Amino acid sequence: MTALNALDVIRTKRDGGELSDEQIRFLIEGYTAGTIPDEQVSALLMAIVFRGMTPRELATWTAAMIESGERLDLSSVSRPTVDKHSTGGVGDKTSLVLCPLVAACGAAVPQLSGRGLGHTGGTLDKLEAIPGWRAKLDNDEIVRLLETVGGVICAASEGLAPADRKLYALRDVTGTVESIPLIASSIMSKKIAEGTAALVLDVKTGSGAFLPPIEQGRELARTMVGIGEGNGVRTVALITDMEWPLGMAAGNGVEVAESVEVLAGGGPSDLIELTLALAREMCELAGVSLDPHDVLASGRAMDKWREMIRAQGGDPDAPLPQAKESEVLRADATGYLRRLDARAVGNAAWRLGAGRARKEDPVSPSAGVLLRAKPGDRITAGAPLLELLTDDPDRIPAALAALEGAIEIGPEPPPFRPLVHERISA
Amino acid sequence: MTALNALDVIRTKRDGGELSDEQIRFLIEGYTAGTIPDEQVSALLMAIVFRGMTPRELATWTAAMIESGERLDLSSVSRPTVDKHSTGGVGDKTSLVLCPLVAACGAAVPQLSGRGLGHTGGTLDKLEAIPGWRAKLDNDEIVRLLETVGGVICAASEGLAPADRKLYALRDVTGTVESIPLIASSIMSKKIAEGTAALVLDVKTGSGAFLPPIEQGRELARTMVGIGEGNGVRTVALITDMEWPLGMAAGNGVEVAESVEVLAGGGPSDLIELTLALAREMCELAGVSLDPHDVLASGRAMDKWREMIRAQGGDPDAPLPQAKESEVLRADATGYLRRLDARAVGNAAWRLGAGRARKEDPVSPSAGVLLRAKPGDRITAGAPLLELLTDDPDRIPAALAALEGAIEIGPEPPPFRPLVHERISA
Repeated sequence: MTALNALDVIRTKRDGGELSDEQIRFLIEGYTAGTIPDEQVSALLMAIVFRGMTPRELATWTAAMIESGERLDLSSVSRPTVDKHSTGGVGDKTSLVLCPLVAACGAAVPQLSGRGLGHTGGTLDKLEAIPGWRAKLDNDEIVRLLETVGGVICAASEGLAPADRKLYALRDVTGTVESIPLIASSIMSKKIAEGTAALVLDVKTGSGAFLPPIEQGRELARTMVGIGEGNGVRTVALITDMEWPLGMAAGNGVEVAESVEVLAGGGPSDLIELTLALAREMCELAGVSLDPHDVLASGRAMDKWREMIRAQGGDPDAPLPQAKESEVLRADATGYLRRLDARAVGNAAWRLGAGRARKEDPVSPSAGVLLRAKPGDRITAGAPLLELLTDDPDRIPAALAALEGAIEIGPEPPPFRPLVHERISA
Repeated sequence: MTALNALDVIRTKRDGGELSDEQIRFLIEGYTAGTIPDEQVSALLMAIVFRGMTPRELATWTAAMIESGERLDLSSVSRPTVDKHSTGGVGDKTSLVLCPLVAACGAAVPQLSGRGLGHTGGTLDKLEAIPGWRAKLDNDEIVRLLETVGGVICAASEGLAPADRKLYALRDVTGTVESIPLIASSIMSKKIAEGTAALVLDVKTGSGAFLPPIEQGRELARTMVGIGEGNGVRTVALITDMEWPLGMAAGNGVEVAESVEVLAGGGPSDLIELTLALAREMCELAGVSLDPHDVLASGRAMDKWREMIRAQGGDPDAPLPQAKESEVLRADATGYLRRLDARAVGNAAWRLGAGRARKEDPVSPSAGVLLRAKPGDRITAGAPLLELLTDDPDRIPAALAALEGAIEIGPEPPPFRPLVHERISA
């Protein structure tokens, strides 16, 4: 029996060996406790990016992350609980609409969310654009709001999967985000620890997804469904399109505004379609029979939204922060908009201030990108394509650079892309 | 032109792209200045372990490390300068003999050395076993001692290749030591920055080397000779054997004692042979015509050793620290000692206290392993093979565990292994 040490764990994974359960628990517990430093864990994470994890390693890794903290007890909530998680898209504000919508349908939605990761936005960053709204709730408040309001969007409390909290922040700045086992264990440890009984996963595919090829999205979806079902959480995944941005806005405050449009009965059709597809899966898993389309049309989802925002200190009527500077990018040709690269738009929003490069950086509530056209639209030369919003005009050149080669105009419309590609269940 | 950021650098390398000169300089300068944190650099280093570096990347990386600090100016030294560097072996104390020997031959030897890395010892750790001896000299002292004494073994001053100092310590704890471009750039940046005009490299091959296969040793040697010659330093490499330990002692004080034996005209034959082979290469590169064999036999190298130790505050006549505990490992069969694994002996010495697991750990001056037999020796069952030395008897079981499977006794002597396998020059 040799003493466990982090260097041996790193070397074992680097050289293609399989980590023992003891090594994995030692690593996760030591990192959570602060006895194993960031630089050793980031080296291990990079080795995992290259070497992957076996199913046994992944099961132990996820279990160790859940056991690094408390597991939220939602057994006192009388409604059926169901949550949704997206792997991260550009302009994807479906959470903001789904939570009040599915709550208005009768389920309880414990939407414990994260902050921005790379080129994609974070739900909490978006909602924090609302004056007064607070992301931080304690466990008692979460349980109480689930019972009374039915929907909560908040930060996972400090005690929930603390290992994931530390790993998530570390991966964000060390280029170790794009790994199927690391993505799957991060998502599922949080979602299992938050205590939801059922979970719908929105796994993105296409150029704006973390894992663009559909084969990788499928592998991620299957991996997560397996972890969920193995831990007693009913789990379904939809593989959905992220070739171009969802809706017409990418940023923080601008995405809140667009979500409110949908709740008010308007909004872009792709955003509505995806929101309803996910809401139907959530309602089915929760055993709730109201139809989300009808509930959205009735205005009850909007009422629920206002109730939710107020319950967390926000003013749903307060004006959202407006950017001081804007720059319009125009079409240089006449034809069909054939391509508008989601990742490039996400990177542009990030450069404008909507995302962060380092975990301690703040984000701007007003920065972002507005779409003036969507792929498939017929446009004329000189017509506006994108509007860049920022408080700092010095950021605009970097945003324009991020968009280079991201737009294509041609004589034919682009081939049709379905919004929902596949449904994966156990 | 996009702003440089560390995350992009990591991702580029992770995904198999080639880093630009600007990215490499940004990374090395930022890490040296402390604006890029350990966890980002260790992730990048692990990506380099998997992806390697192109010759252009490596040239820029090494140049950036040299330029991260000052370059020692030895132009005022009237003797020709020549140094030696070993990639790290078990029981390899040749530096301790070579420095006074080649200085006694008429060259100036600026031996700026490091501390222990993994299972191999560090020259400074060894010399610090001598009461009073100090590793730290300022640049003026180094230049003065090279002129007056002709030989200096000391720590690289803080201002010399500070990027390498930080990277070396980080690699040590993050499993990113074993990479040809990282080893080559680390060694060569220090050696070029120390200002030597010529350099002999001792690249180890065999089970106790960092890179056991000879093909990897050859690649490392060629890479380093290329970097040296490209920077105006005449460089020759010998690929030498490290299948079993060099000499009869591995540790700190015990290696000083054995070096003094060689300087006194005694000592183990393999240690003498390798020392003379390296000394001849050094003298040839320096253009010094005295024969190292004759100078060693004359006692002038011993005189120079005593002068060197005194010049750095040490007492060459003081007794070396003795270990409080010892344990003798005996042969369990009669026959030829066929194998005595160098890496296992190095790990045993490390476990006994001679090496460090974390960069801030102290090392014991008295701990180590003494060989009572060498591969090829005829031995009888019950005869002593190894003697383990430590101040802490609790360390002995781990040392014994490290030696499991490391010793083989059989009816035939082992196949002959040359001490010097190859010579590589530009």
